[in-house]
Amino acid sequence: MRRDIAMTESAVMQGLLSGMRIIEGSAFVAAPSGGMTLAQLGADVIRFDQIGGGLDYGRWPLAPDGTSLYWAGLNKGKRSIAVDLRNKDGQELLAALVGAPGPDAGIFLTNFPARGWMSYDRLRERRADLIMLNVLGNHDGSTAVDYTVNPAVGYPMVTGRADDTRPVNHVLPAWDLICGQSVAVGILAADRHRARSGEGQLLTLALSDVALAVVSAMGHVAEAQVLGEERPRVGNDLYGAFGRDFATRDGRRVMPVAISDKQWQALCDATESSEQMRLLAQQLGLDFADEGDRFRARDEIAAIIAPWCAARGLAEVREAFDANGVCWGPYQSFLQLVAEDPRCSTANPLFTAIDQPGVGRVLAAGSPLAPADLGRVPVRPAPRLGEHTDEVLAGVLGLSSAEIGALHDRKVIAGPSR
Amino acid sequence: MRRDIAMTESAVMQGLLSGMRIIEGSAFVAAPSGGMTLAQLGADVIRFDQIGGGLDYGRWPLAPDGTSLYWAGLNKGKRSIAVDLRNKDGQELLAALVGAPGPDAGIFLTNFPARGWMSYDRLRERRADLIMLNVLGNHDGSTAVDYTVNPAVGYPMVTGRADDTRPVNHVLPAWDLICGQSVAVGILAADRHRARSGEGQLLTLALSDVALAVVSAMGHVAEAQVLGEERPRVGNDLYGAFGRDFATRDGRRVMPVAISDKQWQALCDATESSEQMRLLAQQLGLDFADEGDRFRARDEIAAIIAPWCAARGLAEVREAFDANGVCWGPYQSFLQLVAEDPRCSTANPLFTAIDQPGVGRVLAAGSPLAPADLGRVPVRPAPRLGEHTDEVLAGVLGLSSAEIGALHDRKVIAGPSR
Repeated sequence: MRRDIAMTESAVMQGLLSGMRIIEGSAFVAAPSGGMTLAQLGADVIRFDQIGGGLDYGRWPLAPDGTSLYWAGLNKGKRSIAVDLRNKDGQELLAALVGAPGPDAGIFLTNFPARGWMSYDRLRERRADLIMLNVLGNHDGSTAVDYTVNPAVGYPMVTGRADDTRPVNHVLPAWDLICGQSVAVGILAADRHRARSGEGQLLTLALSDVALAVVSAMGHVAEAQVLGEERPRVGNDLYGAFGRDFATRDGRRVMPVAISDKQWQALCDATESSEQMRLLAQQLGLDFADEGDRFRARDEIAAIIAPWCAARGLAEVREAFDANGVCWGPYQSFLQLVAEDPRCSTANPLFTAIDQPGVGRVLAAGSPLAPADLGRVPVRPAPRLGEHTDEVLAGVLGLSSAEIGALHDRKVIAGPSR
Repeated sequence: MRRDIAMTESAVMQGLLSGMRIIEGSAFVAAPSGGMTLAQLGADVIRFDQIGGGLDYGRWPLAPDGTSLYWAGLNKGKRSIAVDLRNKDGQELLAALVGAPGPDAGIFLTNFPARGWMSYDRLRERRADLIMLNVLGNHDGSTAVDYTVNPAVGYPMVTGRADDTRPVNHVLPAWDLICGQSVAVGILAADRHRARSGEGQLLTLALSDVALAVVSAMGHVAEAQVLGEERPRVGNDLYGAFGRDFATRDGRRVMPVAISDKQWQALCDATESSEQMRLLAQQLGLDFADEGDRFRARDEIAAIIAPWCAARGLAEVREAFDANGVCWGPYQSFLQLVAEDPRCSTANPLFTAIDQPGVGRVLAAGSPLAPADLGRVPVRPAPRLGEHTDEVLAGVLGLSSAEIGALHDRKVIAGPSR
């Protein structure tokens, strides 16, 4: 066992955040993806869970043996400890981990309710300079999840085909994912402040605030207040410039966009439509060098581009678009993405084929942040639940084998469950 | 003018990142939102633009006077300098800003092509420990934007009503926004590494890698590889548990979700359907304590909840849901959000009413990260383009009034354009 510890710890000691340790008590997407972001930059992220797994341990999609592909995807590169969270001694172990000494430790990330032993005030008794980031639903502490925040912030009303007025939720849990990156920002910012001032900090981060800050950033709040108008539902069209999806002869679809003038010229060149576009602009009294005028005439512009795409297969469209520098993308299902796109393969240094326990050999992404000199931290699989319980209690808290054995016997802790 | 400088600099000297300085050369969403995230935590973020504005300066939506609400939303709390980027002397000024001394300076964020004077190697001649983060489209340096990445990564094929098979793009530029937060993570991680090792770093961050890392994290890549199945399109239903949108008697819609067992019990209690659900599960041979079984029986479950919602107005649904602790959200357009939701008002400490030049008095969000002891950095409006040109050249580079005047005369730099 001693050798295992040494190997794990040396594997962690690389990357921009090497040495940093974060204790994570979490479930679902936001907090776990924040912790994973830090782990994939080299931090030692120790996630604790109830013995048997937390609320997200069986979340779909599942591998044939029942292993959650979702849990495996969101916890790559962390260490896992399994503890009975209802047991006082289990709580004491976790509080000791959160409060462990060292300038790079003393950081606690959680989306659990910060009550009882998990409250900032109680944990701060362990170390005065504790950094704690608590992800909330709403700023007042009430519950909200991605699926309930999204309907409230306006986007489903303008998402979906223009000929269907029913709201459309995006399937991507975008608010959770933005929140997850904000989690990592908050922890690093608080760590920087602590390194300079010696002061810890309690940071709260409400999921609905993350969404509202985006609605403000994208101009929707000002649009509502200043213009008093609803944004129109424009289907797959790009708002405020030109972009739309087109069908190809072989039943595929493509999305070319022309936000800048250069992109517009490229699209006209590729589709051999410069002269038609010139006549169209003249006829409509518009100037297609203006992105707003391209948006106003989007239906007429699309009517010129659609037959060009419909007369060609995807390969031919790709060739003409690429040769002319058009900004575009093909539509791909998840299966097509994995089968056809070299960006989603080991030809892209983002990806490594790993052996994920319970799942098998799969492509897994590391950090999208690529440090040129230091290189990326190698992609590590998600742990088995409780895989590192003994190692962490020995290595971080200095517990003896006898003490760890007694905790197992009393079912306060557990080792790997699979 | 001297007093203005002092005021501006003192306003910046607070927050977790006070003292940190970032030079930003950017356009659109990803890089600017990353810079704004750091600015709203107290960093001094100096954005440079071509005199007259860059590619995103006129991006829709627009205020009546033509001011971009989008630009104003994405650049809050930054300082702005306007420089002729094609002029050698202008380039020299910017390189000097990027390479300015100090442990908290020497950080450059850009989504421009890192060529010529803007290349890492050239800028690194100014200071060996430069931190530079370059946002790319694809990892190989080729072009991609949110609107062309999104179709490629699978989500539009599973977004939208189940009775319509056409792909649906989400309107939210989610990849840009996730990338923007990753930008801030990368800069803070590199800054931490530099503070410990003395080493700078070039970080690249490709927008499509950000999306692919999410597709991997959410289990879609593994699902494609291990199960070889396409995720079904399930409309607004929550995948793998229960959640769906329902119409109310007064023409509104609500989205209740039941991922956890507790949420499921609350939904049954609120809709007085526990007995019906028990019988339904029995009849189908399913166990609704299992989230997967709730997903399998989603149509039958929805058939019980739909008439309950349809018989009640939004207010009545709200009362019953809240009283029973249901996890739910109302659908709101952007106008309804601003008019009806107290979370989108100054009742939420996230928001402040500010005077935005060219726009007027609008609600604006600060950082969603709320530091309990330190407090949030007050929300500051976006600058006018070139508002801080003179102040930055004097304060950071130490240029004299005469030198700054000569640069104006030669049109190398410009002051506020509106």
